[in-house]
Amino acid sequence: MTKMKCVISYDGTNFSGLQIQPRNRTIQGEMEKALAKIHKGEHIRVYASGRTDKGVHAKAQTLHFESDYTLSPADWKRALNTVLPPDIYVNDAAQVPDSFHARFDVIEKEYRYYIFNELEPDVFKQHYVYHYPYTLDVAKMQESGQYFEGLHDFTTFSSAKADIKGSKIRHLYEVSCHHDGSRIEFILRGNGFLYNMARIIVGTLLDVGRGKRQPSEIEELFGKKERQSAGDTVPPQGLYLWNVKYEER
Amino acid sequence: MTKMKCVISYDGTNFSGLQIQPRNRTIQGEMEKALAKIHKGEHIRVYASGRTDKGVHAKAQTLHFESDYTLSPADWKRALNTVLPPDIYVNDAAQVPDSFHARFDVIEKEYRYYIFNELEPDVFKQHYVYHYPYTLDVAKMQESGQYFEGLHDFTTFSSAKADIKGSKIRHLYEVSCHHDGSRIEFILRGNGFLYNMARIIVGTLLDVGRGKRQPSEIEELFGKKERQSAGDTVPPQGLYLWNVKYEER
Repeated sequence: MTKMKCVISYDGTNFSGLQIQPRNRTIQGEMEKALAKIHKGEHIRVYASGRTDKGVHAKAQTLHFESDYTLSPADWKRALNTVLPPDIYVNDAAQVPDSFHARFDVIEKEYRYYIFNELEPDVFKQHYVYHYPYTLDVAKMQESGQYFEGLHDFTTFSSAKADIKGSKIRHLYEVSCHHDGSRIEFILRGNGFLYNMARIIVGTLLDVGRGKRQPSEIEELFGKKERQSAGDTVPPQGLYLWNVKYEER
Repeated sequence: MTKMKCVISYDGTNFSGLQIQPRNRTIQGEMEKALAKIHKGEHIRVYASGRTDKGVHAKAQTLHFESDYTLSPADWKRALNTVLPPDIYVNDAAQVPDSFHARFDVIEKEYRYYIFNELEPDVFKQHYVYHYPYTLDVAKMQESGQYFEGLHDFTTFSSAKADIKGSKIRHLYEVSCHHDGSRIEFILRGNGFLYNMARIIVGTLLDVGRGKRQPSEIEELFGKKERQSAGDTVPPQGLYLWNVKYEER
């Protein structure tokens, strides 16, 4: 058996998220369908670095699978892209050791979130950014980002639907905010993210940007450990799983 | 009755074109549905500057309609945008004289066509540009554009499905080609365009860009008056109705 790692991008607009579902179109479902086509109907399970929700995009999601076939990485890439639908693309394929696991071996994930900060919407951006027509103080949002960096219990900043048993402690390496004309970009990097965590952090930063909260108030929120103390979960279409890092072997 | 002119933008991805059809989603259909909602079910017919095909976008399509209502232009804009789906947006509304007609009064139309000239596709651009992975000589395409400018019989450069009786003579003011990194932009301006004409001109310019034809050969093509002498009709997702001009009154 050969273990292959693939870095893929997808436009999340027409997917019900990553994880396979019996009746809905998902990234995992389409990837496994593509692999079955290549393997004459045999089911090949794919393991991704983690789930993404309905409507969330990926520039570099990572997954692995095992196969009896011995194709070169370039041939795997070509074969998969030939059978995959146009909203998923394999950027890169590589053979990895048997011990590699796309989910358990992640050392860093990067998410980016994009806001289109104009009064009027743009029909061409509706699925790719969050249209937010209110005045935002980007400097204050940038200042607030630092309160999220470091090791914290992120219970306040994760969905109540998150896994109840697991640890809520995560280490964020960067939470920054930049603007380029009417585009506002949030960069979030860390060793892991709880369910909805990236979208709730951005929602809380938007409260600061609009003057509903002060940057210094962020620190207190960690102690509350209640989802409702944080800002809204911003919509999925602005979110991109931007990069997934693994230990160099 | 008040006559209103509206400038609208739409993402053509999920429309079967502009013109109303009984079972498919169209721009005209959605506009008339929105107007019926505002007019308590009354059918209000909209007249556009011209049709656009399935998958073709618009930055500034123009249309008119008549109504018994007396709303300010700002209120018309707000009312329509409240009821329209997110892939159509009214950029501007204005009252016009009874004699105005969105189709018959056009003095100039501008189309733009966008090509994504990279080896690998980009999942986020699939509905908005034509992915063309071959090397193109932009200077030669730019040079060829001038042969289309001026007054010509465009029979060779229009679909065989075009209106058989009407004149095929049109006056093009500009056919130019520019590149900005991997994005190639074609600008076509004229007093009118036959069915598929913009897309066939771009297809013919791409033949020149790939070295399949020489710029000087374009002139002979006009004399052939046969659709099959010209290049392919490029796909709809790269095409944008960019602007429609009317006489200042």
